[in-house]
Amino acid sequence: MSVSRLFTEADLARGVEAPLGGAQAHYLRHVMRHEEGARLLLFNGRDGEWNATLSLRGKKSAAAIVETQTRPQAAEPDLWLCFAPVKSARIDLVAEKATELGVAVLQPVFTRHTAVARVNVERLRAGAIEAAEQTERLTVPEVRAPVELGGLIDRWPVGRRLLMCDETGGGPPIAEALTALDPAARRDPWAILIGPEGGFARAELEALRRMKDVTSVGLGPRILRADTAALAALACWQAMLGDWGKPTPRLASDYRTSRTSR
Amino acid sequence: MSVSRLFTEADLARGVEAPLGGAQAHYLRHVMRHEEGARLLLFNGRDGEWNATLSLRGKKSAAAIVETQTRPQAAEPDLWLCFAPVKSARIDLVAEKATELGVAVLQPVFTRHTAVARVNVERLRAGAIEAAEQTERLTVPEVRAPVELGGLIDRWPVGRRLLMCDETGGGPPIAEALTALDPAARRDPWAILIGPEGGFARAELEALRRMKDVTSVGLGPRILRADTAALAALACWQAMLGDWGKPTPRLASDYRTSRTSR
Repeated sequence: MSVSRLFTEADLARGVEAPLGGAQAHYLRHVMRHEEGARLLLFNGRDGEWNATLSLRGKKSAAAIVETQTRPQAAEPDLWLCFAPVKSARIDLVAEKATELGVAVLQPVFTRHTAVARVNVERLRAGAIEAAEQTERLTVPEVRAPVELGGLIDRWPVGRRLLMCDETGGGPPIAEALTALDPAARRDPWAILIGPEGGFARAELEALRRMKDVTSVGLGPRILRADTAALAALACWQAMLGDWGKPTPRLASDYRTSRTSR
Repeated sequence: MSVSRLFTEADLARGVEAPLGGAQAHYLRHVMRHEEGARLLLFNGRDGEWNATLSLRGKKSAAAIVETQTRPQAAEPDLWLCFAPVKSARIDLVAEKATELGVAVLQPVFTRHTAVARVNVERLRAGAIEAAEQTERLTVPEVRAPVELGGLIDRWPVGRRLLMCDETGGGPPIAEALTALDPAARRDPWAILIGPEGGFARAELEALRRMKDVTSVGLGPRILRADTAALAALACWQAMLGDWGKPTPRLASDYRTSRTSR
C-alpha cells in the first residue's frame, strides 16, 4: 500500500483538519486512487512531518486529519543556488535536482549573456514542492523572483559567502578550494552562482571578483552545461561542507519500495 | 560564426577526407545552415581534435577535409557508471550528464527491483555522442549492453574498485569515505554503482558487500532519485579522485559564446 507524502500550508498538530487543494485532492483520488481513510504524510516546513488520514468531502475536495508526528522539524543547510535561467525543460530539472540536493533558496539571475528572458516562477515553485515531497525534505526551497546580476551583487547579504563556478578556468578545483576553507568559513551561510551557457561578461566577472568572501572554483576539464554545473557544484558543496555527514533516514522498506513517483 | 564539433569513426590526420553520416550532413546543412568550407572540429576518441572544413557532396552527403590538430588525444579517467535503468527521459539524462561528468563506460544493470525491462542502447549511445561533442571531450563513453547484477558481480574485473551508493544508510558519507582512501586506492580504476528506485534486494546488498574493494557510501539525509544519485556521486568522485584537478580548457571566447546547442 503506497503512502502519499504532501506539502501543505496548514499548521500541523494532532487533530487538525488540513484542507487539501483541488489539485492535491484530484491527485490522491484519481491518480493514486486513495480511498477514505488512506494513510498520508504531511509537512509544512514548520511543524515537522505528520501521519494523517484522508477524508473525502464531496466530489472535488478533501482534507487530511492529522494524527501523530513522525519527524520533528529540521532545517536544511542555509544554501542558495543563484543561476542564470535556461530553457524550460532544463530549468525544471534545476529546480527538481536542487531541491533533492538540499538548497534553501532558488534565485534566478539575469546576466548579460542569459538567453532566456522570462522565468515562470510559479512553475518552478510547483516543481520544487513536488521534489520536496518525494525527497523526504521537511521544507520546500523558497523560489525567488528573478533579479539582475548587478542588483544581486549590490544587495548581497553581509556574511553570506559565494561559491562562483567560473568556466573561464580562473578558479582552483572545487575540492581543493572547499578543503582549504577555515572552520569559520565552513559554517557560514553560502550561495552557489552558476553563469549562463554563454559565460559571464567580462564586466560581470570583474564585479563578482570584487565581492567580499567570493570563492571562484573550476569544475574540471570538460565544459558542463549550466544545469549540470549547478548540480555538480551542489553535490560537492553538500558532500564537503553541507549536511551529507548526516545519515540517510532509515525508512521502513515497504514504504520506500512502494512509493509511487508522480 | 558558430563552429560545429562532431564525433567521427574515421581516422583523423592532415588531408584526410572524413565522410559524414546522413544525420550529420543533414544537421550541418539544414539545422546549422553551414555552407561549403565552413569550419568544423572533429574527434574520434583516438587521434585528438582537428580543425576541418565542410565539403558538400550532392544533396544529402558531405565530408570533412581534415586540416590541423587543435588538441592531442587525452584519456578520460577510468571510471564506469553502473546503473539500474530508469524511465526513458531520465535514462537519457543519465547518459548525457554522465558523459559531461567524464565517465568512460556506461553499464546498465538489471536488479531485482528494477522497474524498467528494456534499454535502448543505441539511443543511449547517440545521447552520449551528442553530449561528448558539446562537452569538449576527446572520447565518447562506451555504452554497454545491459547485464544482470549477478553476472556483473561474477565477472567483476580484478583490481577495479566499486563505489556503492547505498540508500539503506549503511555507508559513511561520501566525502569522508573518499578522503580516507590510501593513495594506491585513489589511483585504481573505479566504478560507481547506483541501485534502482526501489533499492537493492537484501540478497543483492549482501552479494555486493562480499565483493573485494567495495566502498559503500551515503549521499546525505535526503532521498535522491536514482538519476540524481548517479550525477551527485559522479561529481563528488571527479572532484575528489578524478581529473577535476586539471584546469578547464581555455577556449577562445567567441567560440564559447557562439556555440549553438542542439
